[in-house]
Amino acid sequence: MSSNVPISQHDITAPTPQNTPLTQAPIALGLSRPTVPDISEDSEPTETDGNDSNLPPGAHSAMLGLVQGRLADLVGKSSGYIESLPVEVKKSIEALKGVQVKQNELQNQFRRECLELEKKYLELQKPLYERRLAIISGTAKGTQEEIDAGIQASLKDNEEYSPIPADAPGDPAPIPEFWLTALRNHVGLSELITERDAGALKKLTDIRLSYLPSDQPKPGFKIAFHFSPNEYFDNEVLEKTYLYQEEVGYSGDFVYDRAIGTEIKWKEDKDLTKEFEIKKQRNKNTNRTRLVRKTRPTDSFFNFFSPPVPPAGEDELDDDELEDLEEKLEMDYQIGEDLKEKIIPRAIDYFTGKALEYDMLEEEDDFDDFDDDDDEGRFDDDV
Amino acid sequence: MSSNVPISQHDITAPTPQNTPLTQAPIALGLSRPTVPDISEDSEPTETDGNDSNLPPGAHSAMLGLVQGRLADLVGKSSGYIESLPVEVKKSIEALKGVQVKQNELQNQFRRECLELEKKYLELQKPLYERRLAIISGTAKGTQEEIDAGIQASLKDNEEYSPIPADAPGDPAPIPEFWLTALRNHVGLSELITERDAGALKKLTDIRLSYLPSDQPKPGFKIAFHFSPNEYFDNEVLEKTYLYQEEVGYSGDFVYDRAIGTEIKWKEDKDLTKEFEIKKQRNKNTNRTRLVRKTRPTDSFFNFFSPPVPPAGEDELDDDELEDLEEKLEMDYQIGEDLKEKIIPRAIDYFTGKALEYDMLEEEDDFDDFDDDDDEGRFDDDV
Repeated sequence: MSSNVPISQHDITAPTPQNTPLTQAPIALGLSRPTVPDISEDSEPTETDGNDSNLPPGAHSAMLGLVQGRLADLVGKSSGYIESLPVEVKKSIEALKGVQVKQNELQNQFRRECLELEKKYLELQKPLYERRLAIISGTAKGTQEEIDAGIQASLKDNEEYSPIPADAPGDPAPIPEFWLTALRNHVGLSELITERDAGALKKLTDIRLSYLPSDQPKPGFKIAFHFSPNEYFDNEVLEKTYLYQEEVGYSGDFVYDRAIGTEIKWKEDKDLTKEFEIKKQRNKNTNRTRLVRKTRPTDSFFNFFSPPVPPAGEDELDDDELEDLEEKLEMDYQIGEDLKEKIIPRAIDYFTGKALEYDMLEEEDDFDDFDDDDDEGRFDDDV
Repeated sequence: MSSNVPISQHDITAPTPQNTPLTQAPIALGLSRPTVPDISEDSEPTETDGNDSNLPPGAHSAMLGLVQGRLADLVGKSSGYIESLPVEVKKSIEALKGVQVKQNELQNQFRRECLELEKKYLELQKPLYERRLAIISGTAKGTQEEIDAGIQASLKDNEEYSPIPADAPGDPAPIPEFWLTALRNHVGLSELITERDAGALKKLTDIRLSYLPSDQPKPGFKIAFHFSPNEYFDNEVLEKTYLYQEEVGYSGDFVYDRAIGTEIKWKEDKDLTKEFEIKKQRNKNTNRTRLVRKTRPTDSFFNFFSPPVPPAGEDELDDDELEDLEEKLEMDYQIGEDLKEKIIPRAIDYFTGKALEYDMLEEEDDFDDFDDDDDEGRFDDDV
């Protein structure tokens, strides 16, 4: 298949990597997509074969209620069927569960080997990442060959793209605010970056991915943010490490265990994660007033380096707090995964905004029409 | 981490593969998850750097409209920023795009190598799949060791599980309707399987996965449904083949190209995908009536082997028809992927219903509370 079909040609039979928006498959977990553990106590699955239809609670909405009702029927049916089978057949069922244990061990091994493959390719990509850093920072200049390849790629995406004239004067120059611009073009991160943060993120010179050594019990990866000297903090590198659990989850994917961030050594009065307030205080005895400075936590991208911590024990948090924490953990893992899978590998596309359009189309596909007659009909059928 | 935490213990700090429900990360595409092309003409992305904020249309709902509005601002901002840069910097930007082309080639290579790894593990799994088939069909009997391992696994999931007594009489026996029961415990497939289909699916003896040879231009996989002789059709095997496009998509995943199904050789009057109607016809000349049998297509699992075909040219279908077709293609790909990734590797869990509970928790996480105050507040902020 030709990959130079221009994007404006509406040839729906020949989607190419350049013109193909991506739709996420609606139900399945894919293979190498880490998942986050569900920490809510009320949603642990229960074993049904042997027991009756002992379903996990937590129907959030009428819509979900309908879906669950249908599934409950199914589980009930299956459970009853197995119950009714003679003991000789039940023995075979247990034997199959025994075979499945070996199958799961292979799946675990497969996932580990995939991770090694990821590591191998990260090494292969490193010269390209170094070249990128050199061009952004200006320690090297893009060659005419690289520039031509870039223009060709732009023209593939959009045949009306007007490239730089070949005789334009001047050598290639460093790209200011490259990483700040790229991060601001990511949906999740753009919400975290405040105007105050932008001052510090202008000093962000590179974001690098590495993997934890294979000899550690928990696999995982590390994202390192490199900064040039700045007025905000003393660290040259801020790191965020994500650990997976040792065993893959039920779906065969890694499950996130926890995240660890670098402690930021803020310069005096420069902590972007705090707001300062001047308050008047009155001394009860002398009745004199004085000014006191109070600090309180505030929204900031740099809270990313103080990730939420899963609760240490049971019953410490109520349901709302647990749900809130779970949402924060999910967001934290999601941003880590997007940095690893999307932003670091395709930073130039985030810088130009090209990646954002693909992300948007993805999101769009996650929404469905509310007033779709078909959907309503389908629900009626299921009642 | 210990993996024998029983499922009924609410220890939220130590989720294990056995007790950990899986939450899908909300935004990112993971690595090895194939995607389906978006065939709707109105949602092709456009290149914005160089042009203005030329956004893809298609806001489906007020909610989505808000999200898009925010993103449009961002794209506009980024685009303006790049426009304002001196030509020397623009040269560096083009050079980075050139470097990215090489990066994408590596990604393509990585994805192909992942597929080879999948093939390697399929070979490693084959003895286990053969053992499973033998136990289900009764050509071999589960050993006491396998039965004990299965009981141990059940007890890990649920400490109150009551296993078969060790002194229960009788040898392990074949499991009737194993695959029909397993398929009916999958959310998507249970909707496709009619009562009439069940008669034929009782004769389903195995479902096997294979990959297309590496020397073919398009990678892909094949799912083979093996049947014992039956009254419905002559085929011993019904196959469904899924082809990926040669190049990985923008996200670095394979993109589905098309699916091909076996033509079913129905025995006379046994086509489960057709309904028969007897209608009276009157001859206009003689005024005599006669009975005529009419056939019309009907819902059936076996339509799975006549997958929807992407349209051959432009303007053949209107928007509604395109959307409808896209939905059908998505469902078809989804079921293929679920068979490959979930049902074949963990058939016993679908048979017992255990897998269904994990699938349900997954689905549950895709729903959000409609009346959540936080969410409303967040949207207000964005307006």
